[in-house]
Amino acid sequence: MNAVATTWVSGAAGSPYDVDNLPYGVFSREGQPPRVGVRIGDFVLDVATVAAYGRDRASEGDLDLASVWAQPTLNAFLALGRPAWDAARTWLVEVLGNEVHRARTEPHLMPVDAVTMHLPFEVADYVDFYCSIQHATNVGRIFRPDGDALLPNWRHLPVGYHGRAGTVVVSGTPVLRPSGQRKRPDEVAPTYGPSRRLDIEAELGFVVGAPTALGSSVATGAFAEHVFGVTLLNDWSARDIQAWEYVPLGPFLGKSFATSISAWVTPLAALDAARTPLPGQDPAPLDYLRVEEPAGLDIALEVLLNGEVVSRPPYAAMYWSPAQMLAHLTVNGASLRSGDLFASGTISGDERDQRGSFLELSWGGAEPFAAARTFLEDGDEVTLRATAPGTAGGRIALGEVIGRIAPAR
Amino acid sequence: MNAVATTWVSGAAGSPYDVDNLPYGVFSREGQPPRVGVRIGDFVLDVATVAAYGRDRASEGDLDLASVWAQPTLNAFLALGRPAWDAARTWLVEVLGNEVHRARTEPHLMPVDAVTMHLPFEVADYVDFYCSIQHATNVGRIFRPDGDALLPNWRHLPVGYHGRAGTVVVSGTPVLRPSGQRKRPDEVAPTYGPSRRLDIEAELGFVVGAPTALGSSVATGAFAEHVFGVTLLNDWSARDIQAWEYVPLGPFLGKSFATSISAWVTPLAALDAARTPLPGQDPAPLDYLRVEEPAGLDIALEVLLNGEVVSRPPYAAMYWSPAQMLAHLTVNGASLRSGDLFASGTISGDERDQRGSFLELSWGGAEPFAAARTFLEDGDEVTLRATAPGTAGGRIALGEVIGRIAPAR
Repeated sequence: MNAVATTWVSGAAGSPYDVDNLPYGVFSREGQPPRVGVRIGDFVLDVATVAAYGRDRASEGDLDLASVWAQPTLNAFLALGRPAWDAARTWLVEVLGNEVHRARTEPHLMPVDAVTMHLPFEVADYVDFYCSIQHATNVGRIFRPDGDALLPNWRHLPVGYHGRAGTVVVSGTPVLRPSGQRKRPDEVAPTYGPSRRLDIEAELGFVVGAPTALGSSVATGAFAEHVFGVTLLNDWSARDIQAWEYVPLGPFLGKSFATSISAWVTPLAALDAARTPLPGQDPAPLDYLRVEEPAGLDIALEVLLNGEVVSRPPYAAMYWSPAQMLAHLTVNGASLRSGDLFASGTISGDERDQRGSFLELSWGGAEPFAAARTFLEDGDEVTLRATAPGTAGGRIALGEVIGRIAPAR
Repeated sequence: MNAVATTWVSGAAGSPYDVDNLPYGVFSREGQPPRVGVRIGDFVLDVATVAAYGRDRASEGDLDLASVWAQPTLNAFLALGRPAWDAARTWLVEVLGNEVHRARTEPHLMPVDAVTMHLPFEVADYVDFYCSIQHATNVGRIFRPDGDALLPNWRHLPVGYHGRAGTVVVSGTPVLRPSGQRKRPDEVAPTYGPSRRLDIEAELGFVVGAPTALGSSVATGAFAEHVFGVTLLNDWSARDIQAWEYVPLGPFLGKSFATSISAWVTPLAALDAARTPLPGQDPAPLDYLRVEEPAGLDIALEVLLNGEVVSRPPYAAMYWSPAQMLAHLTVNGASLRSGDLFASGTISGDERDQRGSFLELSWGGAEPFAAARTFLEDGDEVTLRATAPGTAGGRIALGEVIGRIAPAR
């Protein structure tokens, strides 16, 4: 790719969706079935149709991108693996960058506002980690004020657990306030009712493409062979339900009602310029968790509540790297499937206005922050946004994640 | 169905696989793609082929069972819902019970030993509960000797968590000893290596058929509308990995390397005569967890280690009922998909020889039991078996679950 991104697409050159970005999603037009699209500027490119025209080029190396892109999820494309993803990117940069392709490509650009975006891939297994030392420390102080903030295992492994894959939804899906059992410390027994402490968790999600066989592991150095790209992710959390249920087997109904991801999956290749060294790990991790630097990602998030920025979590502050999460997830021989999704856990920085959850922003509900808020109210809308350095010298945007709270049924 | 089960299938009448059982699985013959089969006696019936012959009958009510049964998983059949499952059962009992169908049906019976059995359904989400008060109490005493054996939430809700759906395997699949981080209490830091405390958990799994929409819940009384049937399930557990990793987010790599289920899914209808009252719940559960009795299941399990029975866990002793698990799982509005699997947690009775895990049988490794065993050694083979009262007056068998431990890679 050129150091300076250039595209003939109107308004796209120099925008956060220039040809150094090119995230993938699944779109539909009225009355048409969903299919894969690539975002460029404020447009979605119908890549299946364009790839079918240019089959001479897109089919190099026995690739039939036109047929995998005509499907209603990214899963078949994800399964192709790194060489195919790289070939597809090279082809897209050529098609969108070289004026000679304009005449036959431009008719297949649609304004992004004119299409409906869908969940971009069928989620196989969903794992959520807990990789921010600031977040883990804050939560430990809030939930276990009399104990050690950080548990003994935290600095030795990226703590994680499985979440509900079937309730991962695309940005824009309304989030119903969940009901369930909750018990305040001053109550003698639990009661049933709508959550009173509904929260967000601002995270990144990593999308697995190339699968593995049961019994094999993915070394940290093989991360890019298996992970296709990144989404923004809001792991909605009902803190009162979670606090009552979570011992000893972890979060369950406090999380399983909804997890929102962006409609766009940003390819790993678009984040090459965002790679940055980890802040430092002490003690040194066991061999299977050693990584080559730069292993972190310099991605700047914003959390907006009803349009107002209430936090700016810095992904660069994360203690555990994405490659370490994947190596840990598979060290026991657990297999990967195309469409597996693993998330970073809440991203929180050192400063108060860098915390990625309302639990932390309001310090357990004790300190109202923006608009006198502690937790979410019905009708509230939360937006996650993020940008990162692009390979062309500007900044690229990740797809935003929006969710509005609907009242409990 | 008749009170006395009768079938023309050789050797099946009066066997544990008589027409009051009729579990579903997925089989293949050499060189043929997998498809749905129903077990009768020591045979598998190629139901898709027979249903295509008898389309006049099998297609009643717009049902096209021949096409859903020709698929390589049960998922499409599961999605049809209760009326279709009941119609299919009525048709099967007629075909296998009435001699007039023998001539054209018998050619489609294959000895079960002559076919390969596959994972019967694609697992959507996998949830594991913790419904035995004896098991929860035993584990509490072993892991937290200085605390309360039962945590405060245990009697108020069926505690559960999500497991890894992608590593659910069919009976007979070898189980590789997992490696990972473990730390003994006497060690100052964790080490990496093969699990030294590899264990089983003898459980029942419940297979969801009819899906629900996000935001809806399944009342306890609607259980049979959504759950198709039951499998035996071995939730293999690496206790040393689990003990080090599980705070605060629950089990992860200590479980995610493999979960084995039986090749046969026993329809709920086959367990009508096994329904039995729960042992009793104190305190009375919240309204959404109230059940109509009999809500329990009188299913007798056996755990065999290298062919020797080492335990006989009684499902009738379980504190929380299957309908309560499902009502709890969905009370927050979490949607269900066809192929969701939720398991009971380890089944343990009051007696020592009724415990469903080696952790309990050996009391945390302190008391060797069968063949001087505490935990599993390489080459060990574990078999789970179960029977229940059938509707014809005899006993029906659930499909067995076998797994042999292969050495760590």
